[in-house]
Order: sequence, then C-alpha cells, then structure tokens
Amino acid sequence: MTDFVATRAAFDLPEGLVYLDGNSLGPLPRAAAARVERTIRAEWGERLIRAWNDAGWMAQPPRVGDRIGRLIGAPAGSVVVGDTLSIKVYQALAAALALRPKRRIVLSDSGNFPTDLYIAQGLLDTMGQGHALRVVAPEAVADAIDEDVAAVMLTEVDYRTGRLHDMAALTAHAHAAGALTVWDLAHSAGAIPVDLSAAGADFAVGCTYKYLNGGPGAPAFIYVAPDHADDARPALAGWMGHEKPFAFAPDYRPGAGIERMRVGTPPVIALAALEAALDVWDGVSMADVRAASLDLSERFIAEVEARCPTLTLASPRDGRRRGSQVSFRHPDAYAIMAALIDRGVIGDVRAPDILRFGFTPLYLGHAEVARGAAILGEIMTSEAWRDPRYQVRQAVT
Amino acid sequence: MTDFVATRAAFDLPEGLVYLDGNSLGPLPRAAAARVERTIRAEWGERLIRAWNDAGWMAQPPRVGDRIGRLIGAPAGSVVVGDTLSIKVYQALAAALALRPKRRIVLSDSGNFPTDLYIAQGLLDTMGQGHALRVVAPEAVADAIDEDVAAVMLTEVDYRTGRLHDMAALTAHAHAAGALTVWDLAHSAGAIPVDLSAAGADFAVGCTYKYLNGGPGAPAFIYVAPDHADDARPALAGWMGHEKPFAFAPDYRPGAGIERMRVGTPPVIALAALEAALDVWDGVSMADVRAASLDLSERFIAEVEARCPTLTLASPRDGRRRGSQVSFRHPDAYAIMAALIDRGVIGDVRAPDILRFGFTPLYLGHAEVARGAAILGEIMTSEAWRDPRYQVRQAVT
Repeated sequence: MTDFVATRAAFDLPEGLVYLDGNSLGPLPRAAAARVERTIRAEWGERLIRAWNDAGWMAQPPRVGDRIGRLIGAPAGSVVVGDTLSIKVYQALAAALALRPKRRIVLSDSGNFPTDLYIAQGLLDTMGQGHALRVVAPEAVADAIDEDVAAVMLTEVDYRTGRLHDMAALTAHAHAAGALTVWDLAHSAGAIPVDLSAAGADFAVGCTYKYLNGGPGAPAFIYVAPDHADDARPALAGWMGHEKPFAFAPDYRPGAGIERMRVGTPPVIALAALEAALDVWDGVSMADVRAASLDLSERFIAEVEARCPTLTLASPRDGRRRGSQVSFRHPDAYAIMAALIDRGVIGDVRAPDILRFGFTPLYLGHAEVARGAAILGEIMTSEAWRDPRYQVRQAVT
Repeated sequence: MTDFVATRAAFDLPEGLVYLDGNSLGPLPRAAAARVERTIRAEWGERLIRAWNDAGWMAQPPRVGDRIGRLIGAPAGSVVVGDTLSIKVYQALAAALALRPKRRIVLSDSGNFPTDLYIAQGLLDTMGQGHALRVVAPEAVADAIDEDVAAVMLTEVDYRTGRLHDMAALTAHAHAAGALTVWDLAHSAGAIPVDLSAAGADFAVGCTYKYLNGGPGAPAFIYVAPDHADDARPALAGWMGHEKPFAFAPDYRPGAGIERMRVGTPPVIALAALEAALDVWDGVSMADVRAASLDLSERFIAEVEARCPTLTLASPRDGRRRGSQVSFRHPDAYAIMAALIDRGVIGDVRAPDILRFGFTPLYLGHAEVARGAAILGEIMTSEAWRDPRYQVRQAVT
C-alpha cells in the first residue's frame, strides 16, 4: 500500500492553500532545494569539470529516465530525459516518419495540446516532402486511421477536458493499418497507470513538471519501444546521442538504443531537482494513486454540482474515461478562477471557458477537496466573481 | 576600467586549485546558489503556478537574452535563451536554409565542433531535399564559398586549437556570394569581443556554461539579425514561439521577431543560476577581458615553452588569431593532463593529443598562470606522467 501520509509530508505547500493545479506545475518537494544546493556547491563548486565523471552527471539522463520508466510501464533502458517536451515530440515524430517512408499522413486530434500540432507542422514543413497533418475530433481518431497514415500522434489525456484515450486499443488499431504511434504522456505520467509495453506503444514523450513535480521547466522524457530503438533515426543528431561523443569524430553515428535520443549537454541543475522529486515516487503504486485520484475527483464533482448549478461538467463523467483532472465550463471562467485564487484555491483556466482542477493524491486529501468545492460554491452563490478586479483574461502554462 | 578584483571575489573557487578549464565549464559564481534557492523556495515553493506571471518566469528567455546580447554586439530584442546549443544550431541552420530555398550546400569546416556537423547532417537528412554538407579545412573556407552555398556554418573559435575565424571578413564574403552565415559562439561569448551587428552576422548561437559561467548544462542562446527576424521560419515550432501561446489555437503562427525562436517551457531553475552568473558581467568591458586574457595567455605560452620542450604549441602564436585558450600537443596528452589534475591544475584534453587551457580573467591572474606553468614544467621534467595510474583515456565536455 502506498503511504500517502509519507508522500504528503514530502511536499512543502504554503499553509492554508488548496492547490488543485499540480496538473500544470507540481509543488516543491521538500528535499529539492537541498539536493539542488548540493549539486551546485559540492559538485559544480568543488569538483568543477571533474563532476561530469565523478558526480555522475553524464549518466543522469538514462538513469533518471529509468526512474520515470517504472511509472509508465517502460523497461529499463528505454527512456531518456532531456530537452523540453516540444523537442521530444519533434524527435519522436521525425523518427516515426522515417520508419514509414512511403506514407505521408500524420494523424492527430483536436484535443491534442497545441504545441504537439505546431511541432508537427514545423517538422512537416521542414521535411518539405508532401506530408500532411490530419486533425480529427478525438472520437473520430480510430476511424481515421488508414493506410496513408505514417504516425498517429496523440496526447493520452486531453489538457482541457481530461478525456482519456484508450492507448492500447488505438495503438492496436494503428498497427493493424501499418501505422506507428507517438503518445504524449504530459497529463498521464504520475497521474494514471500507463503501461507502454503492454499497449505496444512505439514512441512516447512527456514532461516532468506536472504530476511528477520536477520543477518549473524541468526536462522532458522520451520513450522508444525496444523493437525500434536501434532503427530509429535521430533528426536531432546531437553529440550526446553519438556512439562515442568524446571521440569527436566528424560524422554522426547514432548511439545504441535510447542513447541516440540524447541531444546536447544535460541540464544538470534541473535534473537534481527532478531526482529529488522522483525520490517521492519510490514505493508509490500507480494503482493506489489512481484509486485515490478517482475518489478525490468524484467527491469534487459531487460537491461542485450540488453547489454550482451554472457550472457544466466538461470532463467525462465516467472516471474510467478521465485522467486525473476535472474541468467545468462557464462563460466567465477567467473571473471565477481569479476570485477562487484570491481565496487560496488554485486551479487554472483554458480558453475560452474551461476551469481546470487537478487531483494529485501524493499531497491532496479529502479536506482540501471539500474546502476547494465549498469556496467555489460560495463564489458562485454570492457571484463574488463579478467584482471588477476579477475581470482578467490571462492564463499560464 | 573593469574591476577584476571584484569579479574575482564573485567566484567560489576551491582553495589552492588552478582552474584553467573555464572554457569547458565556468566555476560557480558565489551568488548562484542563493539565487537558485530563492527561485526554488520563494517562487516555486510559495507562489507555485502563479510565479509564471508574478516572478516573471515567462519573460526570462528574452530578458536573459538581452543581457548576453550586450556581450556579443547584439541589439536588444535579438537574442533569446533556451534549449541546448545543439538545438539552437538546428534552429538557426534550418531558418537560414529556408531563406535560401534554391541553394543546396551547407559549408562548414573541420575545426567546427562535431555536434554542429552532426546536427547539420541530421537536419539535411530530415529535409531529404538533396542538400549536402561540405566540410573544408578552416583556412579553405573563404575560397569554398560559391553560389551553391546557402549557409556558411562556423564556430568562431576552434575548440581544439583556439584558432579564431575572421567573422566580419567571412560574413562579407558569404554575403557577396548570396549566402547566409550561422556563427557558433560557444568559445567566443564572454571570451573575446564579438560584434554581431558590425560583422553583419545573420544567425548566431552559443552556450552559457563556458566563459559565461552559467552552470553545468545551462541553456543556450540564439541570435537572429533584426533584418531576418520576421522572416525566419522556425523549424522547431513550439508553443512558446507562437504569437499567442495561451490562445491555444490549432495552427502555428510565429511570434514577432526573436520570440519565435523560443520553443518549449523555459528552464526556470537553470535560468536563475545563469542570471546570477550574468550579474558578474555587469560593468565588465569585453575589451578589458580581451587585453587581460592575451596577457595571461602570452605569459603561459612563454613559461610553458621555456620549461617543456616536448610540448608543441597547437594554437596560433599570434594572439590576434586566437580565442581565449591555449593548446599544446603531445602524444601522451591524456597522461600529462591526468598528472596535472592530480596536482591541482585543471585543464582538459581533446583527442587525440591536445592539452587545452582556458584563460578567464574574471577569476584568474598572473599567480595562477605561473603556478600552472610551473607544475606542468615539473611534470614534464620529472616525467611524472609516466606513472601507470595516469595512463587513462577519457575526456569530458
């Protein structure tokens, strides 16, 4: 059994705050500041250049990758950390297209996070070989997979509604048509059980600053199925992915397996914070997290619906079809969220009208959910959000 | 006049160490640990998601870019920070090629850092449009620029020998033939005076963990000449480079000017360390740094040549043709460097036979240079490097 009392004690949340935005930026793990300070003072400061070897900096990306791999059903040696999620999408999609050279369609859906679509557009433009991005509604993906499709690129959990794709079924469907899959796990890793191996996923990418709590701008990760790892061609052929980076050979030769998905010099300081965040996950079972997250989400939905008749549930009502967030619609979502934040309950907004709330059992329990729903109810009943100071229109990542 | 006593006091170097490897990884600025801790505890910890706005995280990449811009002759609003140098090379080269759609040659030289060549190979492969990478000797670059060349991609200072290209002359030459230039400033920024505007450079990229002392794996930067900034097509079309990232529109529309060269979520914690490192540069004149660096380098060459007849100078003897490093050749470079490091003098090695030493006046003076040369002399005279424990063959970034 996962000890949620212990995981809760591992975070430093401001007193009195109800933080329902861990789906956007996870909170500070208590050990992260000291871990980063050690890396800065004892490694960088004292060991300087020697720390690349003797503090193990060079080996961080695959080592940290393996720790994330455990949470997403990826075998050891199939995940590596680095860059941003946008870059990792580019790498994965480029590698997938290179494995299907005769096909010209990238299939995605309108629920995908925009940067994935933008990155695909930039890649296809750069390739200039007549590829096209086909974007359909989330529920139309399965039917849109045909023999022109090289890669099906999807985000498993919709960032707006929390709607969950069936990764195993869509992957099987893609494979039956000869296509490959690229799964974005931004809202999955640390949020719900993921089993990339069992689903037969070809490529997957994700970020570590949401449910994994790695810190603002923490590095992303990429998974390549072991079957493809030695055939995947890196579009971003950086020296850290070279077979022998320190031979300084003039020609690129990809490293073995997942190593070739490394690009430049690893972000050592950011990785130190991420390692402290991953320590919290030791001993945590994703099945327990899922059960607790569903319990929290169901309670929140019930409490909010009982108190706020003008808010419409935007997430699937069936918990099995939802990630670890709950969204409601309201035309004045921005003002409502501003009023809520002002009262110490933090969620966020996605244009045009979505209020998002993330449920993260590592550090949230029944009390916070009840308090968050009660304050939201109060704002809706009193119409406190109509106060002019809440009439803002901005959002953050 | 630059106050080198003050800049020296701004670094935390281990007692007794002679650090001649700031060309690979700069040392820890004294203020960096506290700055990072503040970002972690007071911003991430206390403000959480709100810090994207109220701690200014979202605006960091161009703000930090401007601070670097001052050191490389780039006007405000022409430099942005993020990703690794390999990624920034890819962006710059892809944008340059898109501006010269009818030409098919990328010209570079054998003195370029391998990752630049690898990244070019990966890009041209991904484009699959018949482009080729032409690599010539450094001294043959000017003559190799012809009307087939779309982009001349060079590292200004050779990572092995310190040989300095004439940026203004080669850029003028490239422009006369209708080609664009991509300059890698990895060993230039903070090392020597650079004037991108005066040279007419089209694109430039660089890293911040060497002479700028931003920390291990600190983010890179990219410069786009204002003339190209609104025409440059981002191959890596990430959401942070979108005109309106938080509109979450389905189609990519590049942001104005340099903003479009942003890709993913900024690396906030790494940027905090970099900001502390850049504080040290306030009030520093690159002309003073250059004068001091030449003085240190000349002294080192003289002292080493007087004591070590078996070491051959691999760097240009004329200081005007050299960056801020000095290299010597010896077939047993690895063993010699291992013996030197063992005695508290840190430089590094580049395969197969180069001993490299960086001269960084912000924190190095005559005493360190004399001591470094004396210890190197002692090792060469006594042949201490023949000790079996020094027979290693490894190198770091």
